[in-house]
Amino acid sequence: MQDASTIRPGELVADVILSEDAAISFIGTIHTPFASRSDCPRQGSFDGPVCSIVLKRQWVPALEGLGDHERIEVFYWLDRASRNFLLQKPRDGKGTGTFALRSPNRPNPIGVSLVTLERIEDNCLTVRGLDCVDGTPLVDIKPERRDAKAPQT
Amino acid sequence: MQDASTIRPGELVADVILSEDAAISFIGTIHTPFASRSDCPRQGSFDGPVCSIVLKRQWVPALEGLGDHERIEVFYWLDRASRNFLLQKPRDGKGTGTFALRSPNRPNPIGVSLVTLERIEDNCLTVRGLDCVDGTPLVDIKPERRDAKAPQT
Repeated sequence: MQDASTIRPGELVADVILSEDAAISFIGTIHTPFASRSDCPRQGSFDGPVCSIVLKRQWVPALEGLGDHERIEVFYWLDRASRNFLLQKPRDGKGTGTFALRSPNRPNPIGVSLVTLERIEDNCLTVRGLDCVDGTPLVDIKPERRDAKAPQT
Repeated sequence: MQDASTIRPGELVADVILSEDAAISFIGTIHTPFASRSDCPRQGSFDGPVCSIVLKRQWVPALEGLGDHERIEVFYWLDRASRNFLLQKPRDGKGTGTFALRSPNRPNPIGVSLVTLERIEDNCLTVRGLDCVDGTPLVDIKPERRDAKAPQT
């Protein structure tokens, strides 16, 4: 899981094997201009580059009504992350707990970005504001939180 | 996965078996005053009832620095959700796509709440703003998004 050479002084890694308690099913793939983690911005911005989200065809009917929302939350699985960090150290910072950071390295590496939805065509969403690597697996799409336009069941 | 009797007219369910592409490891348990889904508020509020999050002891070091944040995001696994809904119909609404709703019923039932962090004692966090059922498995904790206090690695 973790190459010891990537652990900096001040960092701490849990010596545990992670339990497998529930299964994530990838529902599509995210395409961005960022080929590697070092290319990714620290945080996406609403005027960032155009990115596309390609949904598996079986889920297309579940997009009904999403086009009414200007901002959506995109959930993805950071499949290149290390999952057993307890303390992490940004280059110029001090060791900080994983839960006090939004780093990809965490026991369940789920990323969430709030993005601008530009358009939906068939199974492809065009958005701005993503900050993940090209090819990142898609996990979920939700309308923006606390958006009066989002009814709940 | 889905009891046909719970599908309302206007709703649609995918006839698929979900792939299992990645494993979630539960990192703790959430305790709320809500014993069942029907007891839960539609959305948590920062002045809602006091709830507690009990973290598995192995992850306690990863809380270092979290106490500096007033608002945190709590991620959890909605283990009572139905995972194959395409269209859902709120009681007074029309059929809407799963991705245009924040309903618990979705292919990967990950809930996120933005909550007020009241205090941290050992492996227990006291918060306000949760809206999930008592006993919900904990998946992740992150500082509030776009919070200048949250360095990234």
